[in-house]
Amino acid sequence: MPILEIFSQGEEIVTGQTVDTNSAWLSEQSVALGFTVSRHTAVGDKLGDLIALLKEIAQRADGCLCTGGLGPTSDDLTAEAVAAAFNLPLEFDETAYRQIERYFNNRKRPMPATNRKQALLPQGSIRLDNDWGTAPGFAVRAGRCWFAFMPGVPSEMRGMFIERVKPLLTERFVLNPSRLVTIKTLGIGESDIQQRLDGVSMPDSVQLGFRAGVDEVQTKLLFPANYPETDRTTLTEQIAARLGDFVFGIDGLSENTGNLAAVVDKLMRVAGKTLAVVETASQGLLAAKCPGATWLKSALFEQSLSALGQRLAVAVDANDLAATGVRLAKALQAQNPTDFVLIQLYEGSPAQFQDKDRTIILYNTLLTQGSLQQNRHNLGGPLGRKQNQAALLGLDLLRRHLQNRKI
Amino acid sequence: MPILEIFSQGEEIVTGQTVDTNSAWLSEQSVALGFTVSRHTAVGDKLGDLIALLKEIAQRADGCLCTGGLGPTSDDLTAEAVAAAFNLPLEFDETAYRQIERYFNNRKRPMPATNRKQALLPQGSIRLDNDWGTAPGFAVRAGRCWFAFMPGVPSEMRGMFIERVKPLLTERFVLNPSRLVTIKTLGIGESDIQQRLDGVSMPDSVQLGFRAGVDEVQTKLLFPANYPETDRTTLTEQIAARLGDFVFGIDGLSENTGNLAAVVDKLMRVAGKTLAVVETASQGLLAAKCPGATWLKSALFEQSLSALGQRLAVAVDANDLAATGVRLAKALQAQNPTDFVLIQLYEGSPAQFQDKDRTIILYNTLLTQGSLQQNRHNLGGPLGRKQNQAALLGLDLLRRHLQNRKI
Repeated sequence: MPILEIFSQGEEIVTGQTVDTNSAWLSEQSVALGFTVSRHTAVGDKLGDLIALLKEIAQRADGCLCTGGLGPTSDDLTAEAVAAAFNLPLEFDETAYRQIERYFNNRKRPMPATNRKQALLPQGSIRLDNDWGTAPGFAVRAGRCWFAFMPGVPSEMRGMFIERVKPLLTERFVLNPSRLVTIKTLGIGESDIQQRLDGVSMPDSVQLGFRAGVDEVQTKLLFPANYPETDRTTLTEQIAARLGDFVFGIDGLSENTGNLAAVVDKLMRVAGKTLAVVETASQGLLAAKCPGATWLKSALFEQSLSALGQRLAVAVDANDLAATGVRLAKALQAQNPTDFVLIQLYEGSPAQFQDKDRTIILYNTLLTQGSLQQNRHNLGGPLGRKQNQAALLGLDLLRRHLQNRKI
Repeated sequence: MPILEIFSQGEEIVTGQTVDTNSAWLSEQSVALGFTVSRHTAVGDKLGDLIALLKEIAQRADGCLCTGGLGPTSDDLTAEAVAAAFNLPLEFDETAYRQIERYFNNRKRPMPATNRKQALLPQGSIRLDNDWGTAPGFAVRAGRCWFAFMPGVPSEMRGMFIERVKPLLTERFVLNPSRLVTIKTLGIGESDIQQRLDGVSMPDSVQLGFRAGVDEVQTKLLFPANYPETDRTTLTEQIAARLGDFVFGIDGLSENTGNLAAVVDKLMRVAGKTLAVVETASQGLLAAKCPGATWLKSALFEQSLSALGQRLAVAVDANDLAATGVRLAKALQAQNPTDFVLIQLYEGSPAQFQDKDRTIILYNTLLTQGSLQQNRHNLGGPLGRKQNQAALLGLDLLRRHLQNRKI
C-alpha cells in the first residue's frame, strides 16, 4: 500500500491554541481510500522549519496531504516554502486571481491588496479551485512524493479534499481500499453497545471499533478490500439488529445518511409533513440544527413555564409535565396549522440545569395527526451537553415516529 | 528559548480513529512555561518508524514530551524503541512493578502477566510514578534532548505532566514565559484588519498574528517575557483603537472575556435587562448560543414573514423590512414585558439562503427603553455560515448597545 503522510501548518496548532482535527479527518479518508498513513506532522510558521519538513517528506512518503498556511497574511508561508524547498519559483495564476476576486465580488466586498498573494503558485503545480473560500490549493510532485496543499479551515479543506484531491489521488495511485461501515446510534452508550454485541461472531479480518461523540455513538466495522459485499451487508444488518431502534443511520453500505438532523430532514421531506416546536431545555438548538428545513414552520423558546402557558392560553402544572405537555401540544396545533407538534419541557431548577453533577428530567410530547407519543429522559453533564441532548432527543422522537410509520 | 517537540504514538492517531488532543494540551502548557514548541509528530506502532523519529528529535530539540505506547500489549513499543534508538537496554524496575501490582490489588482484579512488561524501563531513565493508571512513565536524556514519556490516556497524561514532568522541566531549563494577548473582533475580515493596522509601529520583539475562525477573527500579539507591562497595555490599546467598535473582547491583558455570547451574557447581567428575540435567518441559533442566560425571556422562529405578522398582529411588508422590523419590535414589546426586543429579518429566497454563492440581506432591529437601532449586513457563504453569522450579528448589535451605554 502506498505510504501517505499528513502535514499541518499553523502556529496556532504547535502552540496548542487549536486542536488539529484536520489530520484525523484526512487520515480516515486516506485509510478508507487504501493508503497506509505513517505519520502526522505539524509545524508553525517558521519558513526554515517548513522547508526542512517538506524535504524530509519528499524522500519518505509516496503522498502527502497538507493543510494550512494558504491565507493572505504574512505568516501564511506554504507556497513560499514549497518554492524554496523544491526550487519551483512562484508564478502568478490568472485564473486563481479571478476566482479570489469573484469571491469578494459575490460578497459585495472590495478585495484587499494582500489577497493577491494567494494567486501565486509554485511552478508546475496543479491549481485546486476553492469553491468554499478564497485560498486556492495546489498539488505538485517533488522527489518520491505527490503533495496536495489545502486550506486549514476545516469546511474549505473538506470540500476541496472530496471534490478536488480525492479524484487526483485515485487517478495517481493503485489502491485497494478497505471498506468502513459506521452504525450510528443515539441514546445508548458504548459499553451498553458492547454488551448487546456479545456473542456476535466477528470474522478475524473485520476490525470492530467504537467512537463516542457529542451527537452520536458510532460502531465501526472495517472490512478488507476483498470482503464479499453480501457478507458485509449481512454482518452489518446483524449488528444493527442488536442495537434496534437506537440506530438512526448507517454509513458506508449504500448512501451515507448524515447526522440525525439530516436523517429527520429527509424523512420529513419524504413524508411531506410540517412541524411546530416548543423548546425549553434546548433553547433554540433543536430548530438551529435544521437550517434550510422548510418543513419547520415555527419554534418557540420560553424561559418560564407560566409565560409559555399564558402565551398559549393553557393551564400549566410544573408537577405534571406529561399532562401539561399534552395540553400545550393541543393548543399549539389549534393555533398553528402544522401536521406535527413537538413540546419539550423539563423538570429541574436553573441551578440543577447548570450543575454538571446534577440531572434534569426531559419530557417530550409529539402530537401528530391521530397519535400522541411521550417520553422521558434523565439528562446529566454540563449545561451545554444537557442542551444538546435535549435537542437531539426531540429530533429522535420525531425520527422514530417517521420511521415506524413506514412499516 | 528552549525548543520543545511533542510526539504522540498510536495507530489510532495516524489512522484518524482518535483526534489527538494531548498534543494541543501539552503545547499550551509548554508555551505558558516559556518553551518554543516547534513541531508535533504522530506515528503508529511500527518499531522502525519510532526509532527513526526518536533519533531525529534527539538531534533537533532541547526537550520532547511523548505520549502513548506505554501499555501492556504487543503494539505498545515506546520503551523498546527508546532502548534501541539510544542503546539503553531495558531494565526491570522493582518499584514500578510493585506499583502496577498495587493498582490491580486496589481494584480487586488479578494482574495479567502481560503487565509485567510495563515495569521494564530504559537504563538510566527516571521513573515517573503513575498515580492515575497502570503504566509508569519515564524521562531520559539522549543527545541534545531531554525526553519525558507519558501514557496516552488524557487523564493519566495530564496528571503525570502536572505532578511529575512540569517540576522536572522547570528544574532543568531556564525559562522566561512570553505573554499572549488576543484581540477578538466580529464583522471585519483578516485582511481589513491588516489594512487598519498599517502604520502601527510594531516592536521587533512582538509577534503579530491573525486567526479567522467561524465565530470571531483574532488579532494576536505575543510579547516576550521581559516586555514592560505598561508598554504591553499601551500597544494593545493602540491596536484595539484602530479596530474600534469591531472589538468585542481582549484576552490576556487582565481577565479573559470569553466568546461573544459570554461577553453579551455578562453585559446583560450587569445591566440587569431582559430580552425577547425574533429570529428568522439564524433559526434558533441566537438563543441556543446563550444557554443558562436567564435574561433571555423568549425566542421565536417563524419560517414565513406573513405567519410572523399574523402571530404579532402586525402588517408586514417584504419590500420594507426596516419599517416592518420596527412594527414587529413594538408589537413584541407590547406583548412581552421585556426591556429589550431584537427582531431579525432577512431579504432573500430559500434558494438564495441555501446557495453558498449568493447572499441574503440581514435586517436587525433593536428596540430598547427609549432607543431604536437598526443595521443591515450582506451575508454570504454556505447555509450554515449565514445562519451562524446572523446569530452573531444579532448578539453583536446588543453588545454594541450595551457597551456604548456605559460611556
